[in-house]
Amino acid sequence: MQTDQKLASLRAVMAAENIDAYIVSNADPHQNEYAADRWKSRAWLSDMHGSNGTVVVTKDWAGLWTDSRYYEAAELELAGSEIELVRMNDIGVLDILTWLKSNLTEGQTVGFNGADTGLRQAREWVKSFQQAQIKTNTQLDLIERIWEDRPAPPQGELFIVDDSYAGKSIEEKVNEVRDKMNEQGVEAYLLGRTDESCWLLNFRGTDIKDSPTTYCYTLITEAAVTFYVDPGKLTSTSKQKFQTAGITIKNYDAIVEDLTVLHPSQRLLIAPNHISYQLAEAVKHCTCIESRPIVTDLKSIKNETEVRHLKQVLIDDATAMVKFFTWLHAGIKRGEKITELSASHKLESFRAEMTGFRHVSFESIMGYASDGAIVHYAVDETSDKVILPENIFLIDSGGNFLHGTTDTTRTIPMGESSQQQKNDYTLVLHSMLDLLTVEFAEGATGAQLDGICRQAMWKHGRNFKHGTGHGVGFGLEVHEGPQGISGKNLEEMKLGMITTVEPGCYRPGEHGIRIENMVHTVLSKETEFGRFFKFENLTFCPINTDLIERSILPQQHIDWLNAYHAEILVKLSPSLNEEEQAWLKHECRAI
Amino acid sequence: MQTDQKLASLRAVMAAENIDAYIVSNADPHQNEYAADRWKSRAWLSDMHGSNGTVVVTKDWAGLWTDSRYYEAAELELAGSEIELVRMNDIGVLDILTWLKSNLTEGQTVGFNGADTGLRQAREWVKSFQQAQIKTNTQLDLIERIWEDRPAPPQGELFIVDDSYAGKSIEEKVNEVRDKMNEQGVEAYLLGRTDESCWLLNFRGTDIKDSPTTYCYTLITEAAVTFYVDPGKLTSTSKQKFQTAGITIKNYDAIVEDLTVLHPSQRLLIAPNHISYQLAEAVKHCTCIESRPIVTDLKSIKNETEVRHLKQVLIDDATAMVKFFTWLHAGIKRGEKITELSASHKLESFRAEMTGFRHVSFESIMGYASDGAIVHYAVDETSDKVILPENIFLIDSGGNFLHGTTDTTRTIPMGESSQQQKNDYTLVLHSMLDLLTVEFAEGATGAQLDGICRQAMWKHGRNFKHGTGHGVGFGLEVHEGPQGISGKNLEEMKLGMITTVEPGCYRPGEHGIRIENMVHTVLSKETEFGRFFKFENLTFCPINTDLIERSILPQQHIDWLNAYHAEILVKLSPSLNEEEQAWLKHECRAI
Repeated sequence: MQTDQKLASLRAVMAAENIDAYIVSNADPHQNEYAADRWKSRAWLSDMHGSNGTVVVTKDWAGLWTDSRYYEAAELELAGSEIELVRMNDIGVLDILTWLKSNLTEGQTVGFNGADTGLRQAREWVKSFQQAQIKTNTQLDLIERIWEDRPAPPQGELFIVDDSYAGKSIEEKVNEVRDKMNEQGVEAYLLGRTDESCWLLNFRGTDIKDSPTTYCYTLITEAAVTFYVDPGKLTSTSKQKFQTAGITIKNYDAIVEDLTVLHPSQRLLIAPNHISYQLAEAVKHCTCIESRPIVTDLKSIKNETEVRHLKQVLIDDATAMVKFFTWLHAGIKRGEKITELSASHKLESFRAEMTGFRHVSFESIMGYASDGAIVHYAVDETSDKVILPENIFLIDSGGNFLHGTTDTTRTIPMGESSQQQKNDYTLVLHSMLDLLTVEFAEGATGAQLDGICRQAMWKHGRNFKHGTGHGVGFGLEVHEGPQGISGKNLEEMKLGMITTVEPGCYRPGEHGIRIENMVHTVLSKETEFGRFFKFENLTFCPINTDLIERSILPQQHIDWLNAYHAEILVKLSPSLNEEEQAWLKHECRAI
Repeated sequence: MQTDQKLASLRAVMAAENIDAYIVSNADPHQNEYAADRWKSRAWLSDMHGSNGTVVVTKDWAGLWTDSRYYEAAELELAGSEIELVRMNDIGVLDILTWLKSNLTEGQTVGFNGADTGLRQAREWVKSFQQAQIKTNTQLDLIERIWEDRPAPPQGELFIVDDSYAGKSIEEKVNEVRDKMNEQGVEAYLLGRTDESCWLLNFRGTDIKDSPTTYCYTLITEAAVTFYVDPGKLTSTSKQKFQTAGITIKNYDAIVEDLTVLHPSQRLLIAPNHISYQLAEAVKHCTCIESRPIVTDLKSIKNETEVRHLKQVLIDDATAMVKFFTWLHAGIKRGEKITELSASHKLESFRAEMTGFRHVSFESIMGYASDGAIVHYAVDETSDKVILPENIFLIDSGGNFLHGTTDTTRTIPMGESSQQQKNDYTLVLHSMLDLLTVEFAEGATGAQLDGICRQAMWKHGRNFKHGTGHGVGFGLEVHEGPQGISGKNLEEMKLGMITTVEPGCYRPGEHGIRIENMVHTVLSKETEFGRFFKFENLTFCPINTDLIERSILPQQHIDWLNAYHAEILVKLSPSLNEEEQAWLKHECRAI
């Protein structure tokens, strides 16, 4: 079906239901960062496939709101359809809410599917439309009625993460959560985001591309832990493990009914960002305490077992990277045709050889030359570039392993580099090493650390528009809160957290540079002024030194790099063949 | 009347009004940082005079909640009364709301005076008590009924700030505000905080000690600007100035009535932190847009005229400081008895000689030796220390001038200093100069800048528990938002803002160190990555160099200090006598 035919079908069901405007997004019921295809309603309707986009359809108009990252791609994707591109970052452009309030009249009705819209978002819409005397209908999934070959809910099998990897049993984790529930004075807690359940019940899922979670809920009360999941996903092993731990298993859909009958005296903890409007409506009769999930904080502090495994995973990950770099340089030298896409596949195949590899942790960003300047670049057949023995190549990739999640970025020269490339690269490296070697007081926030990182780049008139770093899950999502390093992040950087450090520098149309390591927050010292923390470096993939402009990199950073590369040689060489060892040895030479 | 007698009277009126618990604070109707004596109900009732404290009285119990800064003082102040000290920073201590919910039963009533309780605070209380089935009565000022000699509302005269100081006429400012009202889609805007009206209408007040504001409101609509103030405060000059600018003048109390009759179709902008619960109730029939005051942002960006005047004021202010330092050192040398209190009076008298001086901008912090370690130290007769020719002396003071507000801290040695004092001092200076010389991207937040400032101290295991800096008003409040430099401040540092930079280091029982300059955000450069800002230093008071441990201060900071002191000699010498010039010359010698 063409987009305009889909719009016609949608308008027909809108008319039948007395809906004057309908909002269509790609959200799933858990507001996951990555969703299964079944929930990609907006992508299906509009053919726009970027990560951020919302379509609004009225009787005589249709528009798609997206941010500046996707302007160019969306324009091509929407070409030929009646859907107008709304550039939400442009000055004077109305947001969806304001646009609808300006274009509908009192008494008209806006519809959206409350079952896959987050409570926070939906509540804002409902309240604002009410003030403007516009009605809302949140009960209708109109896309379901017109999307004939819509994918069924995924049926990916669960697998258990052994306690020897997780470091804590289900029972221990449940006890920890119940302690926190007592502290917060709640009798029930709904784990809305899917990775909360994965962490608590020591399992992973296979429902969603590039994500290790599954569609599920867990409800903890003082008396029971109930896991809502499609029973077809359970193997006998996982079923037995859950039963032994005293977990009750119910059908995924049973959550609605169970919440509806929850006793009104119960104080229930829910997270408004990770519960759908429909579910929140089902527990309106209880006292809902809206707060961030208890599991968010618990799982952000990695235990010793998790850290130990992650360290090994990152050695394996770096080994795969070195194998890839050796292959890439040799191939280019031999004049073989290597493209961003073929390089991406090759890198994935090297990672796949490593113990415990499940899948990539996100779609690799293979940004050769000017493609490196597109921060969220996703290569496909149409954009694929041939790698030439010139310019620079930004590679941001990672793996999801049974016992750890990785995320590494390196920028390498493919031939001679310009003075500007070296200058940009050295400043990025300067900033990155400033943060890798910082000491900070307990209680320091992501924003404070972000300022420290950017200082060297700011001094030289450089900046980058993305955050400096994000938390990483243990064999879970590659972007995991609560902590993060950015100018607006007020979360404290706590002992045991795992975070990326990834400053960058981008010149549109020319090149992009980013260097990214993962770090672990550890104790540095304790004085009469309190505890001070530092970052333990976890990533041992060589950092190219040909691109360094020595005169602007402080000597202590050069010393750091030399020690780093000496350590890498020791750690990685045993797993490499002769050719790879030779490449690594050259790359790790002292400067 | 003794405290326990006051409590008995209060309980009698509580019983008569069926109030089971009554909350008493020091808040005034505008939630001003400094309030007139009339509104110091908690201080009157409890005899506790710190800036933070709230009393809760029930039939058979009374308690005062305060933070750790005041534990010691409050214990003495409450001694002999039945009021129990509640240490709100201690672990496990319930906050007022939770305590009341735990100690009252369903159907009982909590009372507080809605006329001087901020909307945000009151709304939280009312909502939470309602959920717990506890009633609230917000209509009663029970303190008014029992406080026989309660001061009347202050009657301080207003005075006009000439446009040649303000840099903009009332009409220009009103136009700017109306433009912003249009942008935000509001038809009316209530200026709740008193300094908003001072800024808009180019006047200052004399109602409140250490504060240049007056009790007033301004209501701006598309058709009118109405200034609500006691007419007894107006001189013929101010009256004429307001009339010429088209301002309608009404009695202070008339605001309630005018809001009550505001047309329901009006969209009214109010700031929930600076409007009382009672006033908010009066406009419940309108669509209230809760947002931060339009004037907050406008007045934080100082215009060229304001900056020019402030620069002159800060030269005068530093001149007064140098006269004071000369007097202090000579007196101590001669063996005169000088105490923290007498030094404070002398410093004020030097400031008072300067053009345009009105009053101190806050109570001076004169922290000799261990008193310097008490961050919010306020010297009085009982704590007054004699200054000896030994140890170090922290002096944090400022003046409110007709054409600028100042805030300066210096720490000076009174004799030989210990290695630790020098080490602490040098690290504080290092941090301060790191921030004074930083360059940062447009959009940088206070938290990012705070991290940059603390980095040197963190590295050496030092930290301080207060913010690094705050905004300063123009001839207005010495603490003025929105910007600030602290780990939790997400406001952007914008061009034209005036801010303090004041890191410190405190060793309880030993000494305290703080060094504070005021800075002006200016453009540093523009590159393809955007605009970059820096701080222009505004304070020209010598920074002691005897306390510097040279080996840990970077050479560029030593160069900065030498250039700074050379500039100070040129700027200040012409206004000093021979003795003062000699002192300054020695203090400003190159190191």
